[in-house]
Amino acid sequence: MDKRVLEWKEAYEMLPRHHHLPIDRFIHHFNEINSIGSTGSGGNSRFPYTKEYREAVEIVKERMKAIGMSVHEDAIGNVYGKVKGIYNHKSLMLGSHIDTVPDGGMFDGLLGVVSALAAVESFIEQNGMPKWSIEVAVFVDEEGSRFNHGLFGSRAMAGEINKETLDEYKDDQGVTIAEAMKADGLQPEQLEYVERDLNQLIGYLELHIEQGIVLDENKEQIGVVEGIAGPARETFTFTGSADHAGNTPMHMRKDALIAASQFIAAIEKLPEQFSETAVATVGKITNFPNGTNVVPGKTEVTVDIRDTDAAVREELIQAIKYTAKRIADTRGLTLEVSNGIRVAPVQMDENMTNMIEEASKELNLAYRKMPSGAGHDAMILGNKVPTGMIFVPSRNGKSHTPEEWTSLSDCLDGILVMERTLGKILSNYNAE
Amino acid sequence: MDKRVLEWKEAYEMLPRHHHLPIDRFIHHFNEINSIGSTGSGGNSRFPYTKEYREAVEIVKERMKAIGMSVHEDAIGNVYGKVKGIYNHKSLMLGSHIDTVPDGGMFDGLLGVVSALAAVESFIEQNGMPKWSIEVAVFVDEEGSRFNHGLFGSRAMAGEINKETLDEYKDDQGVTIAEAMKADGLQPEQLEYVERDLNQLIGYLELHIEQGIVLDENKEQIGVVEGIAGPARETFTFTGSADHAGNTPMHMRKDALIAASQFIAAIEKLPEQFSETAVATVGKITNFPNGTNVVPGKTEVTVDIRDTDAAVREELIQAIKYTAKRIADTRGLTLEVSNGIRVAPVQMDENMTNMIEEASKELNLAYRKMPSGAGHDAMILGNKVPTGMIFVPSRNGKSHTPEEWTSLSDCLDGILVMERTLGKILSNYNAE
Repeated sequence: MDKRVLEWKEAYEMLPRHHHLPIDRFIHHFNEINSIGSTGSGGNSRFPYTKEYREAVEIVKERMKAIGMSVHEDAIGNVYGKVKGIYNHKSLMLGSHIDTVPDGGMFDGLLGVVSALAAVESFIEQNGMPKWSIEVAVFVDEEGSRFNHGLFGSRAMAGEINKETLDEYKDDQGVTIAEAMKADGLQPEQLEYVERDLNQLIGYLELHIEQGIVLDENKEQIGVVEGIAGPARETFTFTGSADHAGNTPMHMRKDALIAASQFIAAIEKLPEQFSETAVATVGKITNFPNGTNVVPGKTEVTVDIRDTDAAVREELIQAIKYTAKRIADTRGLTLEVSNGIRVAPVQMDENMTNMIEEASKELNLAYRKMPSGAGHDAMILGNKVPTGMIFVPSRNGKSHTPEEWTSLSDCLDGILVMERTLGKILSNYNAE
Repeated sequence: MDKRVLEWKEAYEMLPRHHHLPIDRFIHHFNEINSIGSTGSGGNSRFPYTKEYREAVEIVKERMKAIGMSVHEDAIGNVYGKVKGIYNHKSLMLGSHIDTVPDGGMFDGLLGVVSALAAVESFIEQNGMPKWSIEVAVFVDEEGSRFNHGLFGSRAMAGEINKETLDEYKDDQGVTIAEAMKADGLQPEQLEYVERDLNQLIGYLELHIEQGIVLDENKEQIGVVEGIAGPARETFTFTGSADHAGNTPMHMRKDALIAASQFIAAIEKLPEQFSETAVATVGKITNFPNGTNVVPGKTEVTVDIRDTDAAVREELIQAIKYTAKRIADTRGLTLEVSNGIRVAPVQMDENMTNMIEEASKELNLAYRKMPSGAGHDAMILGNKVPTGMIFVPSRNGKSHTPEEWTSLSDCLDGILVMERTLGKILSNYNAE
C-alpha cells in the first residue's frame, strides 16, 4: 500500500457523520488505482490508451460490478456503470476521469470517480433502489496529456468530436488517437455510437479537488461551484528597438521589456475592478533578443483572463487592451495584439447548486460558493444538461504535482455532500 | 565592389577639409577587406584564425608595406605596422581590430584600422618623418565570437593571458584557440614573446564607431571618449509560488513575474539619480515555469549596470539592490542576488582627451565628450598606457548588424581628427 495512503488513514479520526460510509472500500479502491502508473517521485502518470490506463479502468469496472452496477465501455473508452432506478428511462450521472498529467497527483480526477462510487454504494445501502437510475461515468482523456487535447471523452459523449479528429490528434511518437484506441482493443470507427442522448440525463454532478488555495486557506470543507471560468487569452507584442546596453543613454531607448513590465504590473490591479471572481495572469513572457547586454527590442506576453461571466470577462479584456495601448503609446513603441482565444464560461445549474449548498448546511460543513478557474468534464456537460460541481480542498492549493493532497476527512465530507445531493436531485426530479 | 560602398562614395560631396586625405586608397582598402567573409544578408563574418581572417590580415599587411611601414606579426596573430620616427625607442600606437561578430557590420573594428593607416599615410605625406615612431596595431580576436572571450590579442599583448588559457578557450567545434592558431601557421607556444614592453609606448589612440545613437541623434561628428564604462552585472531571482492561473484568486498569489516587472520598471528611473552617463539595463529575463496558465513561481532578471565612474556605478548598484529587496519584501517573496561581475571602468588619459577635443575644435567639427558603454581594446591598453578614443557616428545607433553604417564624410572627419591628434601627441611628447 502506498505509504502516503497509510499516513492518510492514520492521520484520520473517525467522525460520527462518516460512520455509515464504506470507508475501507473507498480507501482500498483509491489506493489500488494509485498503485498503477506511479512514478519514482511519488506522482502518477496514467495516460489514455496505455497499459496503465487499461489496468486502472478494469479495476474501476470490477468495483462497479461489485456494487451491483451494469457496466458499459463505449467504442472510445468511456466507461459507464449504472444502477437501475425505479424509473429507468432517465438517469442522474456522476463522474470524472482517472487519467493524469505527467507525474500528477493522486487526487485530480480519480477522487471524483472513486467518491462517486462510494456515494452511490452508500446511498443504495441506506435507501435501497433509487427513484431514478444513477450512472457513474469515467471519461477518457480529460487531461489531454498524451494527445494535447483535453476533455476528449466528454466531448465525444456530447457529440462534439468528429471522425476526422481521430486521425488528427497525435501523440509525441506520431501515433494517432485512433491507432492508440485500436491498440487498446477499442473501436474508433464506431464513434457514432459514442454520442449519448442527453435528454436521458437528469443532470451531471462531479466532485473534484479545488486545485486552488481558497478552501484550504479559509479552512472550509466544501466548495459549491457556481460556474466554470473558461480561459480567454490574448498575446501582446511590444516592439521597440534593440540597442547596445552600454552605448544607448536611458532617455534614447525604446525598451520593449520595460513597457511589458509596466503592463504586467498594471494588470494585477485590474480584475478586482470588474468582479470578485475575475483573474488575469501573465504566465508566459518571451523577450528578444534576451541578451544580457542588449536593450530588449521585442517582448511578448500572453495574458490568461478568466471569469465565470463572459460579459465581465470581455470588459476586463478591453481594460487590459487599453492599458497595453496606453503604455505602448506613451513610450513610443508599437503594439500588436494577437487574435485571442475565448473558451466560453459555463454556469452551473442553479437548482443543483442550491441542493449542494443545502446538503453542506445540513451536514454543518463550512462551505463557500466559488468559481472554478480550471476546466473539467462538467464544463462540457454544463452546456447541455443541468450540472453541478462539488470542490474539496487542496492542501496549499497544489495540484498537477505529487504534492497534491486532500485529507481523508475532507474526501469523506465530499462523499457525504455528493450522497446527500444526489438524494435531493433524485427525489425532486419529476420527468416532464 | 560592394554596392553599399559605391553608394557610400556617391552620396559623398568632397569637402575642402578632406582634400589632402588619401580618400580613394582608404575606400579601396576598406572595401577590399569587406569583400572577405561577406554573408548573404549583407553582413560580414570574419572570425579569428579562419581562412577569411587570414586573407584580410594579409591585405592589411600589404597596405602597411605600401605606406612604408615595417610589418611584424606576433606568435598569436597580432599585427603591428611601424613607421620609424626621428626617435625610435618609443612609439605612439594606433589600432583596432578586423574580426567581426557573426553577420556583423562593415565598420566595427575595421574602420579603426583602415582609418589609422589613412591618418598615418596622410600625416607622413604632409609632415615627413615623424618625431617619434608610429605603430598601427591590428589586435586579433577582439569580439570573442569564436572562442567566447573577447579582447584576446590586446590582453595577450598587455601580458594578461597565460599559457593555460590557450588550451582552455574552445570554439563550438571543440577546437582550442591554440589548435586554431597552429592551423593558421602561428606559434602559440611562443606566447611569452607576445607581451610588449609597454614603457615603449607613448600612448594608444583608437578610432571606433560609437555603436550608439547619441552622435547621430545630435548631428555631431566626433565623440571624445572620456572613459569606458565596464559593465557590472547582477542577477536577481524572485521566488514566489507557481499556482494555477484559473484557481488562484489575485490576492492569494505570490507571482514572481509581477515582482520582477515592478523591479524592471523601477530600474529605468534610477541611473539619472546618480549620473548623466550611468545606464542600467535588464536585457535578459527567465521566467518559470513560463506556462500560459500558471502563475509564475520564479523569475530571474539580469541587470547590466555601467558608468565610467566605478564609485558612482557601485552606488547605483546598491540602489538597484535595495529596490529589489523592497519589492520582494512588500510582496512576501524571497529574493536571491547572485555574485555579480564587475569590469572596472577605465578613464581615458586627460591630455589625450584634451588633444582630441582641440583637434575637433580646430577642424570646426561638432563634438561631444562622452563615455563608451562598450568595451574596446582601448579598455585593456587604457589601464597601462595613456589612451584616447575617437568615436564617429553610427546611423540610428545600429551596430553588430549589417545595418551598421557611418557616412563617408563622418569617416573622413574621424581620420582628420586622428591625424591632427597624433600630430599633437608626437610634438608634445618628451621622453622622461
